[in-house]
Amino acid sequence: MAQSSSLKLGIAGLGTVGAGVVRLLEKHADLVAARAGRRLVVAAVSARDKRKDRGLDLAGVRWFADPVALAEDSEVDIVVELIGGAEGAARATVEAALAKGKPVVTANKALMAHHGTALARLAEERGAPLAFEAAVAGGIPVIKALREGLAANQVTRVYGILNGTCNYILSTMRETGREFAEVLAEAQKLGYAEADPAFDIDGIDAAHKLALLTSLAFGTEVDLAGVSVEGIRHVSSLDIAYAAELGYRIKLLGVARVTEHGIEQRVHPTMVPIGTPIAHVEGVYNAVVVEGDFAGRVVLQGRGAGAEPTASAVVADLIDVAAGRAVPTFTVPAHALKRIPAAPMERHTGAYYVRLMVVDKPGVIADIAAALRDERVSMEAMIQRGRAPGEAVPVVLTTHDTDEAAMRRALGTIGRLATVLEEPRMIRIEHL
Amino acid sequence: MAQSSSLKLGIAGLGTVGAGVVRLLEKHADLVAARAGRRLVVAAVSARDKRKDRGLDLAGVRWFADPVALAEDSEVDIVVELIGGAEGAARATVEAALAKGKPVVTANKALMAHHGTALARLAEERGAPLAFEAAVAGGIPVIKALREGLAANQVTRVYGILNGTCNYILSTMRETGREFAEVLAEAQKLGYAEADPAFDIDGIDAAHKLALLTSLAFGTEVDLAGVSVEGIRHVSSLDIAYAAELGYRIKLLGVARVTEHGIEQRVHPTMVPIGTPIAHVEGVYNAVVVEGDFAGRVVLQGRGAGAEPTASAVVADLIDVAAGRAVPTFTVPAHALKRIPAAPMERHTGAYYVRLMVVDKPGVIADIAAALRDERVSMEAMIQRGRAPGEAVPVVLTTHDTDEAAMRRALGTIGRLATVLEEPRMIRIEHL
Repeated sequence: MAQSSSLKLGIAGLGTVGAGVVRLLEKHADLVAARAGRRLVVAAVSARDKRKDRGLDLAGVRWFADPVALAEDSEVDIVVELIGGAEGAARATVEAALAKGKPVVTANKALMAHHGTALARLAEERGAPLAFEAAVAGGIPVIKALREGLAANQVTRVYGILNGTCNYILSTMRETGREFAEVLAEAQKLGYAEADPAFDIDGIDAAHKLALLTSLAFGTEVDLAGVSVEGIRHVSSLDIAYAAELGYRIKLLGVARVTEHGIEQRVHPTMVPIGTPIAHVEGVYNAVVVEGDFAGRVVLQGRGAGAEPTASAVVADLIDVAAGRAVPTFTVPAHALKRIPAAPMERHTGAYYVRLMVVDKPGVIADIAAALRDERVSMEAMIQRGRAPGEAVPVVLTTHDTDEAAMRRALGTIGRLATVLEEPRMIRIEHL
Repeated sequence: MAQSSSLKLGIAGLGTVGAGVVRLLEKHADLVAARAGRRLVVAAVSARDKRKDRGLDLAGVRWFADPVALAEDSEVDIVVELIGGAEGAARATVEAALAKGKPVVTANKALMAHHGTALARLAEERGAPLAFEAAVAGGIPVIKALREGLAANQVTRVYGILNGTCNYILSTMRETGREFAEVLAEAQKLGYAEADPAFDIDGIDAAHKLALLTSLAFGTEVDLAGVSVEGIRHVSSLDIAYAAELGYRIKLLGVARVTEHGIEQRVHPTMVPIGTPIAHVEGVYNAVVVEGDFAGRVVLQGRGAGAEPTASAVVADLIDVAAGRAVPTFTVPAHALKRIPAAPMERHTGAYYVRLMVVDKPGVIADIAAALRDERVSMEAMIQRGRAPGEAVPVVLTTHDTDEAAMRRALGTIGRLATVLEEPRMIRIEHL
C-alpha cells in the first residue's frame, strides 16, 4: 500500500450501518482524504440482496455474494465488517481478512466480546490492525479515549450507560410514571426497541460492550462469561419514584473494577446519585465514565447507536488505519493481556435498595430489621408510607455497604416471612 | 531511535505540572512502557532553582540551567515543555527542539494559541511531532477526540467550559447567592484562583483554549486575535437567580462555529438551558462539546487543571510519540490549514438576556419596548417583580434571535432613558 495511493475498502454488510458508512465516505470524501493522508474508496460490497434499494450509488463497486470472498479478494485493501453476530459470516469474514494480513474495522460487539482475544492474537500474528471503535457507544470515541487518551492512567473503575434502548425506557418510565411493559411497547412502535427486545432489555448487549471496555481498561483478556447480567424487566415505576425520593435515578449500568476477589464485571439496574453526571444522561444517549488515578473522573457521552454515529466511529478507525496509526487491539499486545479471574457476584460489596410489599400490621418492621441484623446488614434509611391497616403496603429501605451474599441471605429470610407478600425487589446502589 | 530502546526525555520546567509528569512516569513506568512499546526515561530536566525541594528523586538525571541547551542536547530524544508563557524560554525551547527534528510535547496553551500555526509548520518541515493534549481541558482527551475520534465529521460547532476558576466562581455564586468579589476572594484563599486572577476571570485563558479547539475542529490556522472575549466580572448574583427562574445557568462558555460571515469565536458569560449536559458541569470541572454532522453531540467532561490530570495528558502524548503514532498538529497538515476571516461580534445572531434597573413608574416598560421594536428586536419574556413605586427595581427580559448590532443599538437607546438608572446588563443565550 503506497502511502499516496488510494485505499480500496471492502464493505461486508449493507444494513443501516453499512449504508451509513457508504454515505459518509461519499459525502466527506475530501475531508476524510485530508485527514487520512490518502483517499478511501469503496471498491467492493457484500450483502444478501443485491437488488434491494438502499438509496446508494454503487455504480462501479464490485458486488460479492460471499463476504469471505470479498475479504480475500486481492483488490480489497481494508475489510469493514458490518454483518453482525458472533459467529457465521461475520466471524468467517474477519478471520479471512486477518489471515490475509488485511486491516479490519468492525462495529461488531458480539463478535469482539466472544472472540476478541483470539482475533487480537490473529491480527498481531499477521501484522494487521483490528479496530472496533463502533462496537462500543456508537459515535462516542470511548475506545480511543481509554486506549490512547487515558493510556497513562491506572484505571480504577469504568462504568457506563451502554444501551440506549434501556436508557430510553427507564427515562420514559421516570418522566411519565408508566410501567415497563407499556413503555417497551411504545419504544418498539417508535423503533427504539427491536421486535424481539430480549438482547437489549435483558442486558446482553450492554454486557458485550462492558466486556470490551474491561479489557481495554485493565489490559485483560476479554471475559464475557465473567460478566454478571441482570436486565430491566423487573424495574417498576414504584421503584423509580422511590429512587427519586431517596436522591437517585435508576440506570442500567455496566460497571467494571478490579477487586481483591478478581475482576468484577456487572450489568444491572443501578441507583445512581442524582448529583452525578451519569444521572442526567437521558433517553437514547449513552455515556461512559473512566476513573483514572491521574486524570480523575472523565465522562464521555453522546449517541450510542444509529447509522450516522456508528458510521462516524467506523470511518475514524479507517482514517487511523489509512494514516498508519497502529494501536494494539486491547491497549497492550494480545500476548501480554492478563488473565484475571472473575470476581463472583456473591463477593460484591456495596449498598442496596430493597422494596418489600408487606401487610400493614404491628411487628412487620421488627421482623425485617431482625433478619437484616442477623446477617449484619446495616440499614441506612427506611420509608413506610401510605398506611392501610391489614392491607399490602410498600416498605422501602437502603443499606450501608454490605456483602451481596449476606444481603441475599437476608432477603431469603425476609421473603419467607408470612407478612411479606411478594418477592423482595433489590436494586444495587453505586457510589459515584 | 531504535524501536526497542528506551526514549530519553528532557523535561523543561519543574513546576506543579513538571513534577506531576516526573511522578507519573516513575509510578507507572511499567504500564507506560507496555502501552508505548518502549521505556520512557527522564534523562534531563531544566528549572530555575536546582536546590528547591520538589519531593522528586532526580538522582542520575542531568540538570540544565538553560532549557534551550536541554532541547538541543544530543542525549535528549523528546522535549517536554512545561515552562509556560507565549514567549521567552518556552518558545525558544520548543523552537530549538523542533529545529533539531525532535518531538515536542507541551502543555502550553498560550504558546500554542499565539504561535501554533508557525510551530506546526516548523514541526512538519523537520518531521517532528508537536503534541499538546495537555494545553486544553487538562485530563480530558479532547484534542484526541477532535483530531482522531471524530475525524470523520464535519464539525458544526464546538463549545465548552474551558476555565475551572471561572466555573468554580459561577457555581459557588449560584449555590451560595454571594457576589462575585466575595467568591473570588474565597477562591484565591482556597488556591482555585491566582493572586492576579485577570488571566482567568477576564476570559483570556479560555480564549487561548478556544482558539486551539477552533483550529482542530475546522482545520483553520490558529486565530487568537479573532476571539471575542468577555470575562465574568460583571455577572451578578441577581442575574444568576433570574437565570434559574428562566430555566438557565450562567457559564463562561467558549463557542466556535462557521457562519456566513466567517469563523465566529467567542468567550463570554452565557445562559445555557438547564436541561443540557453542560449546565450540570459544576465547580472546577471542564467540559467540551463537539457537534459533528454524523456523530451528533459528543460531550467530554473532567478535570481541566491540576498536576495529575495535566500529567495524564502529557504522558498520553508521550506514549503516542513513542509508539510512532503521528497526527498532524491541527488535524490536517499545516500547509493545508485554511485561513478563514473572523466573523465580527456585531454580526453574531442569537438570543439575549437583558437586565435593567428602572424607576418603578408607569410608562417605563412602554419606552423599553419601543426601543426594542425600533431595532426589530423581538421580546420572548419579560419579568418585572418586586414593586416599589418611585424606586429602582429590576426589569428582566429575554429576546428571540436577533443581530448583536441591533441589540447593542437598542441597549444604547434604553441606557439613555431617564428612567433607566444603571448601565443595562446583557448576557447572551446559547441554543444547545
